[in-house]
Amino acid sequence: MKDGSAFLNDNAQRIVDGMIGDAERLRIVVSRGPLGERLIDAGAKTVGSVEAGMRMAEAAMGGLGSVSVFMDRASQQWPFTVEARSSQPVLACLGSQYAGWNLSGQDYFAMGSGPARALARVEPLFETLSYHDIASSAVLILETAEPPPRATVEKVSKATGLATEKLTFLYAPTQSLAGGVQIVARALEVALHKINDLKFPLENVVDGIGTAPIPAPHPDFLTAMGRTNDAIIYGGSVQLFVKGSAKEAGKLAEKLPSSASRDYGQPFAEIFTRFKGDFYAIDPLLFSPAEVIVTAIETGDTFRAGRRDLKMLERSLG
Amino acid sequence: MKDGSAFLNDNAQRIVDGMIGDAERLRIVVSRGPLGERLIDAGAKTVGSVEAGMRMAEAAMGGLGSVSVFMDRASQQWPFTVEARSSQPVLACLGSQYAGWNLSGQDYFAMGSGPARALARVEPLFETLSYHDIASSAVLILETAEPPPRATVEKVSKATGLATEKLTFLYAPTQSLAGGVQIVARALEVALHKINDLKFPLENVVDGIGTAPIPAPHPDFLTAMGRTNDAIIYGGSVQLFVKGSAKEAGKLAEKLPSSASRDYGQPFAEIFTRFKGDFYAIDPLLFSPAEVIVTAIETGDTFRAGRRDLKMLERSLG
Amino acid sequence: MKDGSAFLNDNAQRIVDGMIGDAERLRIVVSRGPLGERLIDAGAKTVGSVEAGMRMAEAAMGGLGSVSVFMDRASQQWPFTVEARSSQPVLACLGSQYAGWNLSGQDYFAMGSGPARALARVEPLFETLSYHDIASSAVLILETAEPPPRATVEKVSKATGLATEKLTFLYAPTQSLAGGVQIVARALEVALHKINDLKFPLENVVDGIGTAPIPAPHPDFLTAMGRTNDAIIYGGSVQLFVKGSAKEAGKLAEKLPSSASRDYGQPFAEIFTRFKGDFYAIDPLLFSPAEVIVTAIETGDTFRAGRRDLKMLERSLG
Repeated sequence: MKDGSAFLNDNAQRIVDGMIGDAERLRIVVSRGPLGERLIDAGAKTVGSVEAGMRMAEAAMGGLGSVSVFMDRASQQWPFTVEARSSQPVLACLGSQYAGWNLSGQDYFAMGSGPARALARVEPLFETLSYHDIASSAVLILETAEPPPRATVEKVSKATGLATEKLTFLYAPTQSLAGGVQIVARALEVALHKINDLKFPLENVVDGIGTAPIPAPHPDFLTAMGRTNDAIIYGGSVQLFVKGSAKEAGKLAEKLPSSASRDYGQPFAEIFTRFKGDFYAIDPLLFSPAEVIVTAIETGDTFRAGRRDLKMLERSLG
Repeated sequence: MKDGSAFLNDNAQRIVDGMIGDAERLRIVVSRGPLGERLIDAGAKTVGSVEAGMRMAEAAMGGLGSVSVFMDRASQQWPFTVEARSSQPVLACLGSQYAGWNLSGQDYFAMGSGPARALARVEPLFETLSYHDIASSAVLILETAEPPPRATVEKVSKATGLATEKLTFLYAPTQSLAGGVQIVARALEVALHKINDLKFPLENVVDGIGTAPIPAPHPDFLTAMGRTNDAIIYGGSVQLFVKGSAKEAGKLAEKLPSSASRDYGQPFAEIFTRFKGDFYAIDPLLFSPAEVIVTAIETGDTFRAGRRDLKMLERSLG
Repeated sequence: MKDGSAFLNDNAQRIVDGMIGDAERLRIVVSRGPLGERLIDAGAKTVGSVEAGMRMAEAAMGGLGSVSVFMDRASQQWPFTVEARSSQPVLACLGSQYAGWNLSGQDYFAMGSGPARALARVEPLFETLSYHDIASSAVLILETAEPPPRATVEKVSKATGLATEKLTFLYAPTQSLAGGVQIVARALEVALHKINDLKFPLENVVDGIGTAPIPAPHPDFLTAMGRTNDAIIYGGSVQLFVKGSAKEAGKLAEKLPSSASRDYGQPFAEIFTRFKGDFYAIDPLLFSPAEVIVTAIETGDTFRAGRRDLKMLERSLG
């Protein structure tokens, strides 16, 4: 994945084209916005589906991840589980899937995720990631109930250098089935983001897999957000393969699980309320999987930390 | 999936074409019958395979479902499990997969399943389902050891309005590997059928996943039928996502598992014998998964009922 | 899969072409050797990936197997598991995946695996297997840190009757991520090989699935080899569907698990050291899965033997 090799958006575009072909199967609605931008509603005015959420997650990972679902029998109450894995986790998760591009405007709040970020490269995170995508179309995922307003579309067009009709916006609110699935498909991504916060060298992260239970959607935004966060914080599990010393891998494993955060121990919605809704006052280190396995591939050592808390999951997910 | 949108048979035709290309891999035998109809023997005069059964199940669902297998470690004796899911469960399961078309004739007993049903629309069930398929070829799945006789082929041709050479019949008996797999891939379908019997509004069922253990085939028809039924009745598990009130979802969950039936509690072959082989004397509500999770997506509530009975499974499956 | 039906190498070539297209995603390096042979380094001078190992395993099975990964929650320490299944296990595993072609030369030790073996047919095993592949290109998998030397490439060219530029060598050492994955994807293959050693008629083996945990790679060859062997010997699980009598199936099940070997009971690296590194002094019957389920499809009986030893796995895998 040398600089100049262009494919995150091309991959995502292929996934989007497949979704459009399967629109009725996925219960999504495809249209064009006022500037010619492609809009795919996967859960706002349409009911959407689990599979729409899975495909959104694969598009969000720039086609560098595989997303599947299975029944995890160790979890009696919430067996239905989503799994995302990537042999290019840094690019797939941080270069693409992370919801790091602030696209909010007047009366519109949205953090953009997906490969268009690797074309725009406007976030500080891209000072760390050398990857530049090259593409003739771009894909963005939005966790919203509304399509992007004109100003946002123009902002993305300008930042990516692409005409508005070359942009696709896939959106679904947190409260929807597809929205929930694509969010909890981020167990690996939140681990990668925390790894970066912990200053572990990203080039040493070579492979990874993450799982989390699929929570019931909830019509209340705060509850829905609480559930998707808790699915990862109390039910998420990640295995990483890293280069470097055993010592560094061991230190990483110890710090990585959610239980290493000072704010761990309550359903997320309660934590959020305790901090009076100030998201940024919450310890950012809370946002990570419950259970972590880190394997140092150059030394053969494996470190484990954290554990899933099924009781807390039940309290949050119902 | 508006009226007039045509694709169940087209999807199934693509799956059939792939099976023909992989005939040797799947151990199936492809031929033409006397009226030019395509015949695919997946377990009658050929041994067939697990994978042939999986692909038959995907064809039976009109290409609107995903079928996979995995090892479920919670089930020590019968870990090998088939999973079928669909984000269009009503169309995939009731509009296509349900074996509801009586194609029996002189000396031939067969209930047709698969998307040709949604072209023919001769069953009372289609008074409830508004979907009409449009297609230039049609696919039917038969749980039989013999290809359909001339009269049956002509009946299907007439009902679908297609020439006999545009029809594909995929058949495998209950006693075969592929036959068994495609039957137990119906955990979600039997749940959907019971949902309809319970008068729960079908349009409120938006997504679902079902699993069941793959039983050993058995050369005796009654034993083989008993095992495939028990795999679902005592080993099946389904999660459904439904619209509507929490109260309705809760009532549905309570009634849906097999344990809610008066005839629950014995291996199916024994029940069948007790009713002197009169299939229609058995409580139809018995035919449903052991374990059910129903999530009301508009309220965020989840209801669970029933449980898998691994002891009974062992008694039936050996 | 009649004699003369040609496709193992064609299938593998398609998988190789896909890998070349996804080279960066898979962290593999594609080049041409001095004789024009295609070289794919999946873990020697490049870090490789889990997914490269999965695709190598599918190529090794001549495209007749499906390889996937999942998190097995019954195994707390080593949940990340690879699964390989085939509805043509004899051809996929013995005709292709088995590392039975001695390609060692001066200062080069390698046992070739993959479908080129079914073109060359130089091993005694092919006296038992009547299958001849026909292909215009061939694929070999090597568990090595070096590409094949000139003499080996020429030997393969001569034995397959193909020009050197029509050959692809996929290689990765035991110590690498991809190497480890493609080795432990052999749970089904080692079962098939032992079945042949036990003189059970191969034509009676009709379907199978195998799983094994993915161990941490280790830089020391002996330790890495020990771990991959232990993943299968103490953590592997296989289900087979066979024709023939219940008695024969029962006898097979009893003899098949690793625990039926006199050398069972220590981590493989310790056994190897005890035999002073003389691989061929070790009981060949040790090389088999820990746990076996054999279903006699013509009688409906199922036999189980052996069990996974998670404690031993932890001792070996760390």
